[in-house]
Amino acid sequence: MRDVILEKSKALLPKMVAVRRRLHKYPETGWLEFGTASMVIERLQELGYTITMGEKAVKKDVMMGVPSPDVLQMAQERAIANGADPELVKKMDGGLTGLWGDMKCGGGDGPCFALRFDMDANDIVESRDASKHKPAKEGFASEYEGAMHACGHDSHVAVGLAVAEILADMKDQLNGAIRLIFQPGEEGSRGAGPMVAAGCLDGVDMALGIHIGAQADNPGKIQCGARKFLATDKYDVYFKGRAAHAGFSPHEGKNAVLAACSATLNLHSIARHGDGATRITVGKISGGQGRNVIPPNACLIMETRGASTELNEYMAKEARRIIDAAAKMWDCEYEIKVVGAAPSGESSQEMTDKAVSIARSLPEFTDIRGIEDFAGTEDFAHMMTSLQKKGGKATYIQFGTTLAAGHHNEFFDIDESSMVNGVRMVCLMVWDSLEK
Amino acid sequence: MRDVILEKSKALLPKMVAVRRRLHKYPETGWLEFGTASMVIERLQELGYTITMGEKAVKKDVMMGVPSPDVLQMAQERAIANGADPELVKKMDGGLTGLWGDMKCGGGDGPCFALRFDMDANDIVESRDASKHKPAKEGFASEYEGAMHACGHDSHVAVGLAVAEILADMKDQLNGAIRLIFQPGEEGSRGAGPMVAAGCLDGVDMALGIHIGAQADNPGKIQCGARKFLATDKYDVYFKGRAAHAGFSPHEGKNAVLAACSATLNLHSIARHGDGATRITVGKISGGQGRNVIPPNACLIMETRGASTELNEYMAKEARRIIDAAAKMWDCEYEIKVVGAAPSGESSQEMTDKAVSIARSLPEFTDIRGIEDFAGTEDFAHMMTSLQKKGGKATYIQFGTTLAAGHHNEFFDIDESSMVNGVRMVCLMVWDSLEK
Amino acid sequence: MRDVILEKSKALLPKMVAVRRRLHKYPETGWLEFGTASMVIERLQELGYTITMGEKAVKKDVMMGVPSPDVLQMAQERAIANGADPELVKKMDGGLTGLWGDMKCGGGDGPCFALRFDMDANDIVESRDASKHKPAKEGFASEYEGAMHACGHDSHVAVGLAVAEILADMKDQLNGAIRLIFQPGEEGSRGAGPMVAAGCLDGVDMALGIHIGAQADNPGKIQCGARKFLATDKYDVYFKGRAAHAGFSPHEGKNAVLAACSATLNLHSIARHGDGATRITVGKISGGQGRNVIPPNACLIMETRGASTELNEYMAKEARRIIDAAAKMWDCEYEIKVVGAAPSGESSQEMTDKAVSIARSLPEFTDIRGIEDFAGTEDFAHMMTSLQKKGGKATYIQFGTTLAAGHHNEFFDIDESSMVNGVRMVCLMVWDSLEK
Amino acid sequence: MRDVILEKSKALLPKMVAVRRRLHKYPETGWLEFGTASMVIERLQELGYTITMGEKAVKKDVMMGVPSPDVLQMAQERAIANGADPELVKKMDGGLTGLWGDMKCGGGDGPCFALRFDMDANDIVESRDASKHKPAKEGFASEYEGAMHACGHDSHVAVGLAVAEILADMKDQLNGAIRLIFQPGEEGSRGAGPMVAAGCLDGVDMALGIHIGAQADNPGKIQCGARKFLATDKYDVYFKGRAAHAGFSPHEGKNAVLAACSATLNLHSIARHGDGATRITVGKISGGQGRNVIPPNACLIMETRGASTELNEYMAKEARRIIDAAAKMWDCEYEIKVVGAAPSGESSQEMTDKAVSIARSLPEFTDIRGIEDFAGTEDFAHMMTSLQKKGGKATYIQFGTTLAAGHHNEFFDIDESSMVNGVRMVCLMVWDSLEK
Repeated sequence: MRDVILEKSKALLPKMVAVRRRLHKYPETGWLEFGTASMVIERLQELGYTITMGEKAVKKDVMMGVPSPDVLQMAQERAIANGADPELVKKMDGGLTGLWGDMKCGGGDGPCFALRFDMDANDIVESRDASKHKPAKEGFASEYEGAMHACGHDSHVAVGLAVAEILADMKDQLNGAIRLIFQPGEEGSRGAGPMVAAGCLDGVDMALGIHIGAQADNPGKIQCGARKFLATDKYDVYFKGRAAHAGFSPHEGKNAVLAACSATLNLHSIARHGDGATRITVGKISGGQGRNVIPPNACLIMETRGASTELNEYMAKEARRIIDAAAKMWDCEYEIKVVGAAPSGESSQEMTDKAVSIARSLPEFTDIRGIEDFAGTEDFAHMMTSLQKKGGKATYIQFGTTLAAGHHNEFFDIDESSMVNGVRMVCLMVWDSLEK
Repeated sequence: MRDVILEKSKALLPKMVAVRRRLHKYPETGWLEFGTASMVIERLQELGYTITMGEKAVKKDVMMGVPSPDVLQMAQERAIANGADPELVKKMDGGLTGLWGDMKCGGGDGPCFALRFDMDANDIVESRDASKHKPAKEGFASEYEGAMHACGHDSHVAVGLAVAEILADMKDQLNGAIRLIFQPGEEGSRGAGPMVAAGCLDGVDMALGIHIGAQADNPGKIQCGARKFLATDKYDVYFKGRAAHAGFSPHEGKNAVLAACSATLNLHSIARHGDGATRITVGKISGGQGRNVIPPNACLIMETRGASTELNEYMAKEARRIIDAAAKMWDCEYEIKVVGAAPSGESSQEMTDKAVSIARSLPEFTDIRGIEDFAGTEDFAHMMTSLQKKGGKATYIQFGTTLAAGHHNEFFDIDESSMVNGVRMVCLMVWDSLEK
Repeated sequence: MRDVILEKSKALLPKMVAVRRRLHKYPETGWLEFGTASMVIERLQELGYTITMGEKAVKKDVMMGVPSPDVLQMAQERAIANGADPELVKKMDGGLTGLWGDMKCGGGDGPCFALRFDMDANDIVESRDASKHKPAKEGFASEYEGAMHACGHDSHVAVGLAVAEILADMKDQLNGAIRLIFQPGEEGSRGAGPMVAAGCLDGVDMALGIHIGAQADNPGKIQCGARKFLATDKYDVYFKGRAAHAGFSPHEGKNAVLAACSATLNLHSIARHGDGATRITVGKISGGQGRNVIPPNACLIMETRGASTELNEYMAKEARRIIDAAAKMWDCEYEIKVVGAAPSGESSQEMTDKAVSIARSLPEFTDIRGIEDFAGTEDFAHMMTSLQKKGGKATYIQFGTTLAAGHHNEFFDIDESSMVNGVRMVCLMVWDSLEK
Repeated sequence: MRDVILEKSKALLPKMVAVRRRLHKYPETGWLEFGTASMVIERLQELGYTITMGEKAVKKDVMMGVPSPDVLQMAQERAIANGADPELVKKMDGGLTGLWGDMKCGGGDGPCFALRFDMDANDIVESRDASKHKPAKEGFASEYEGAMHACGHDSHVAVGLAVAEILADMKDQLNGAIRLIFQPGEEGSRGAGPMVAAGCLDGVDMALGIHIGAQADNPGKIQCGARKFLATDKYDVYFKGRAAHAGFSPHEGKNAVLAACSATLNLHSIARHGDGATRITVGKISGGQGRNVIPPNACLIMETRGASTELNEYMAKEARRIIDAAAKMWDCEYEIKVVGAAPSGESSQEMTDKAVSIARSLPEFTDIRGIEDFAGTEDFAHMMTSLQKKGGKATYIQFGTTLAAGHHNEFFDIDESSMVNGVRMVCLMVWDSLEK
C-alpha cells in the first residue's frame, strides 16, 4: 500500500496543479467559498463520499463575521458565472460554505479519522507584476479584486481532493471511517466554530490538520506537531461622532477619525507580556465622509493574539479599555463587534510521534520536528481542543515548500511540487491508523 | 422695476422649491454635476442666454481632484437615467461640468456684471430619519448614496435660475451685459481655477458671489462683504508600506496605517498661529487590506486652511513636513497629490457699500453687516481676487435663513422661503449697476 | 509740567537701566519676588508712598500655584543673601510678595488713578552665549538657574520706580490719589486675583497697565488699548499608574508616561474654534523613575487660552475630557490642580482715546493704534474687568521697543532706551487725569 | 565540609540581615556605590582577600551612563557622611566603584572560580507606607530620595560577604583560587563591560552569578541555568527645538515635547517580532521650561531589549528610525547617547547540571530547574559570554524567596531568611569545583 500511495501521489500532481491554479485565479474569502465548495462537493460525490453541507454542516446562529447580503449575493452570482452549480450554491445561501464527505472503509468498525482542509483566501490585492510574480506571469493571478490566496489554502484543497481520490481507492484495505472536512473562513478564525457546533467532530476519534509552508519554510522541513497556537479575538470597532463644517465650525464636530487614530496608536503600544508572545493588529481603518467635514464615523478591523488563551485575554482586556477611552477622548460613541475567535491548543503527543516516525520514512524530509511553538493562529486549534476534550487525539502538520514571499504578502507563492509530500504524509497517517 | 423684482421673486418661489428639491434628491459632487448642469443649460437656453460650456468653459489641464474614469462614467449614466440630455452630458466628458450664460442688455455698452452660482454637493451620507429631517420626511432626501446637498448649493442653483428669468425679462431696461456662471466643484476649491483659466471673467467688470446661511444664520441677517477667506490647500496623501502576516512575522511589515494615524494626530497638533485663524482637517482616512495583514497602504483626504494666504502656507509647510516624517517613522514611501487650492481675499469696499444700502431698503433684513471676517473657505475668493487684479470689483453676499443643523451636517436643511431674499438682493444689485 | 515730565523721564534712564539690569541678573518667578519686592518697598518708602504689603496686599486663601515650602525658603534666603531686608522678606512669608504704594495729591478730592507694574520672571534658562546675547556679554544675565526675565517685567519695575519718583515730585500740581501696584505672578495668571481680593482696587477710579514690546514690536509703535485678551486656565496634571519591571513583567505596569504622552498629543489636537483664537500648551512634561521601570507617575504643566472667556471654557472642557480619557486609556488615576486663571477683557474706549491723543503728542510714536485684538494673556485683564464692573475705567498700553528675540525666548532682550517712552506715557496719562 | 557550610551559612544570617538592611537604607545607584564598595573592601581586607579596585578594576574609557560630576560629588560626600573611609572613596573618584578580592586556596594549582555580586540600587521612590511595607515599618527604608534597593542587590552583597567569610575559613581544604567580583551598575547594563575590559575575568576558569527571586518566585524554587537573556541597548535621547511665547507666537516654536511624546507613543508601537520576545520602555521623560513657553527641549531615558542579540538589534534599528522621524516631525534636532548595552547569553550546560545536582541535595529546594528562558536582562550575560568565548564556563542561578511585590515596584521586599540558601548554593558550588 505504501508504494501505491507514493506513486499515486506523484501521478496526481498535474491534477493538483490544475485545481490549485483554478482556485488561485478565483480566490474566495471567508463565507464566500461558493465556487470552491461547489467544486469540492461535485468531486467528492464522484469519488463516492457522502456529503453533509449547508445548515447541517455549519451552525448558522454561531457564525461570526458574515459579509453583508449584497456581498454574499455578488459572490454567489460570480461563482455561478464561473461554472458553479446554481443549486449547490443556493443550498449555501447565507454563507453556509462548509461541508464534509464521509466514507466507510472495510468493516467500518475501526476508528474514524477526520482530515481538515481550509478553503478561504485573504483580503489582499495580488501583485500583477509578471516580472516578479509567477501567478501573474503564467496567467493564474487573482481575478477577484481584493482577494488573493496568499496563505496556500488553494493548495490545501488541491491536496485534499488528491487525498480523497487515493483513500477512495484504498478503502477496502482500511477499516474504520474517513471524514474529509472542507472548512470555510479559517482566516478570521470563523469557520471551525460553527462546523464543530454542527457536529463535524461527532464520532471522530482522531483528526489531522495540515498547512503548507508557515514554519516549514523549505521543502525538506516538516513540523509534526505544534503548541502555543496564538489564541485570538477578532473585532470590528465602530466609532460614531458628529459631523461639522471643517472651516466654519470645527469645534462643533466630534472627530471619530481622531478617536480611531488615537486608538490605533495606543493599541499597538499595549505592553508586551512577560509570559509569552502577544500580537495586536489594526489591519484596516476607514473613516470620514468628505475632505472638509469633521469626520463623524470611523471603523477599525482588528485582532488580538496571545500564545495562550490567557495571554490573548490580557490583550483583549487592554484593547477594550483603550478603545473605550479613545472614544471618550473625542466624545464619540462606539461599538465593538466580535467577529471571530480561536483558542490556543497543543498537538497530542502520540499522534505527533506517529507523524515524526512516518516523516522519517520519507527521504524528502531532512529536517523533522516534533511539537514546537507555533507563532501564528490556526482555526484548527478549535477543532483540536474540542476533540481532545472529548477524548480524541489530534495534531497539526506543516509540510515544507519554497516560498516566493512571506504568507499574506502580495508576492506569496509556493513550489507546487511540494503538494506531493503533503498528500503522502496525510495518506500514510490514515493508513497507519486504519490499516486492517 | 424694483417692484417688479420684488413681486416676481416671490412668485417664483414654488418654481425655486421644485428645482432645489430635485437637485437635493440627485446631489452631484465636484466634477460630476452632469445632471445639474444639463438642467441649467436647457433652462438658460430657453431664456435666451448664449451658453459657453465643455472645454471652452473649463480648462482641462488645470483641473484638480477629478474623479476616476469609472466614477465619471457612472455619474454620466446616472444623470442620463434621471433625464439629462445624453448629448449635453457627452460634451461634458471628463467632468467639464462648468458653464456660463451670456446676455447683452439694452445697447450693451454698459458694464458686464457676472454672477456666480455653485452647483456641487458634499460627500456626506444624508440622514434618513423622517422624524428629524424634513428632506427625509417629504421624500426629497438624497438618492445618491454618499452625496448630500449639505451646504445649500442646491438652493444657489434655484436662485440662479430665478435670477436668470427675471433678468431676461428686464433686459431692455438695462444697459450692459450679464454673465451667469454656474460653477462645479466649489467644495474642494477646484472649480473656480479652471473656469477663470478658461476665461469666465474675460470682459467682466464686476462680480457677485452669494451663499445662503453660513454666517447669516437667521433670516433677518445679511453679510454684504467678507475678508479673511480661509485660503486652503487640498491634499490626497498616499502611504505605501509592506504587507506581512500579522501573526507569524509582523516585524517584516511596514505599517502604512500606523504612519497614517501618526500623521493624522500630529497634523491636528500643528501649533495655532499667533497671527490669525488656521484650520487642518483629515476628513477621510482609509488603509489596510485584511484583518490579519500588516497594512501596506493608507490614504488621507485632507486640507489646510489659513485666514490669509500666508497663514495657509504656514499650515501647508508644517503639514508636508509632518507627513514626510510620519512616512519615515514607519519606513513607508508616500506621495502628496494636490487636488485643490484657493487663496484668501477681500470684498471690494464700494460694492459692499452698495449691497449694504440695497439691503437697508429691504425690510426683511434687520441685521445688516459690511465687510467682516469670514471663517470659512470660498472658491469664489479665487474669482474675486483674479477680477480685482484686473481692475474689476467683486463682493460676496451671505443672506440669512433658518438652518436645521450646521453646514456639512447630515441634518442640514434650509428655510426655502429665504431664497426669495437671495433673488431680490442679486437682481437689485444688477439693476443698480446696469440701470439705463 | 509736560516739559518737566519729558526731561525727567530722560534723565532717569541711567537709573532705570541699573534697576532693570539688577533685576535681570536676579530674576524671581511667581510668588518668589522677595528681593524685587523688598527693593521696590524701600524705594517707595523713600519717595513718601504709604505701603500696603503682606497679607493685607495678597489674599492668602485664593492664591494658586504657590511653590513648595522648600522653594519658598530657598528664594527667601537667596534674596537676603543678595541684599534684601530680612524683616521685609519675613513679612512676605508664604509668597505674599505683592504690594502697593499710595500717595494723596493736592487736596486729594480728585479721582484715584492706579498703575499696575508686574515683577515676576519666567521659567526659562537664559542664553549664556556672549556672542549673541547682550545680557551675557555685559554680565547681567540671570544668576538664578532656570529663571529669566524673558518678558520684560524687569523693565516694567524700572519704569514703575521712575514713574513713582516723577509723580512724587509733581504731587502738589495734581489733585486726587495715586496707587502704584507692584504685582507678583503675572506669568501663570496668579497674582492679580489675590491682590484684587485683598482690595488693591478699592476706591480706584481708573487703572492703567503697561507692557513693553509684545504687539508693539518696534520703537515707534504704541498700542493704546486692547481687547480679546486670551482668557486662560493653568493646570498641573498628575497621572498615577503602577511600577513594574520593564523586562520581566511590563504587563503588570500601568504606564503613566504613555497616558501623559497620549494626553499631550491629543490635547494639541483639540479642534480650532470657528469663533476665534484659542491656544493650548503643555509647557512641561515629566514622568518615570528609572530606565527599566514601567513609569508609575507623570506630570503635565499646561494651560489653555481663548480670545474670550467662552472660548477658553471650550478649550478647558475639551482638555479635561481628554486628560480623563488618557488616564483611563492606560488604567491610571489622575488629578488636575488648577494653579492659575485669567479672564478675557477689553479696554475702556474713553481711556484708550485719551492715550491715543497723548501718544500723538509724542513724536517718538509713529504708529499709534487704538483698541486692537490682543493675541496673548494678561493677568491685568482680571484687574481691568473687576474695575469696569465697579464702574471704573481701565486700559492697557503696549509701548514699542526693539526686541532681540521673541518674548519667552532664551535670547529675549529689549532696547533699554525705550523705557523712557513708557515713563512718559504713564506720567502724561496721570497728569491728564489728575491735573488740578 | 558540607556540614560546616550548612551550619555556618545559617549562623551568619543575623550578620547578613544587618548588612542587607544597612544597604537598603543607603541605596546607591549605578557608579555611585561609594559607601557600599567601601564597606565591602574593608570587610574583604579583614578576611584576607587581596583587593583590586579603582582604575585597575574598572576601565574608565569604556564606562557608559556615568552621572554628572555634581551627582558623583554629592554621592561621595554622602557616603563619607554615613561612615565610608574618605581615602577609599577618593580612589573611586569618577564612579570607579567596581572591585574584586582574590584568595589563593591550598596549593593554588586548581582552577580559578569567580563569583559575581552586584551592588547597585534602582531609581525608584520607595514606599513610606509603614502599614504595607516592612522596610518602612522597621525603619530601614531608603534614606536616599529617589533610590531604592527594589531588585535585591542589597541581599546579594550580604550573601557575597557571608560567602567570603565561609570560603576564607575553608581555604586550606580547597585547591585553586577564588575571585569575588563586586560589580556596580548592573541596572542599566553598565558595570560588567568596564570590569571585563579591566581584566576581572583574566585567569578565571569558571564563573557564577546569582540572583534572589526573579523567576524563582517562591522559597522552594531554584533555577540553575538560563538562556535567552534579553539583550539590551540603553539610550538617553535629547530633542532640541526652539522656545516661543505660547500665547503670542506659538507658531514660532519648535515643540520638542511633541517630538518626544510622538516618539514615545510610536516607539511602544514597534511591531512585536515573530521570532521571539522583545521589549521597549521609555522609562523617563522630561521636557519644557515654563508653562507658557513652547518647550524647546525634551529628553527620553529609554531601553530596547530582545531575547537574542539579533532581536535587540531589530528593536534598536526601529527605535532609531522612529526617534529620527519624530525629531523631523517637529523640526527638532536630536542626539542619541548610548549609555548601556548587554548581550544575550546562555548558561554552560555542565555547570548547570552540577548546580542542579547540588540543589537536589538541599531539601529546601522542591522545584529545581535547569536551563530555561530568562525573561529579563542581566549584565552578567556580558561576563558569561566573554568567559565562554575564552573557553571558560559560567552559569547564573536564581534562588527562591517570597516577594512582597514584583521587582522594581515601590513595595518590593524579600524574605531575608532565603539568603541562607543562596550562601549554601554558592559555597557548595565552589567546594565541589575546588575540593582538594
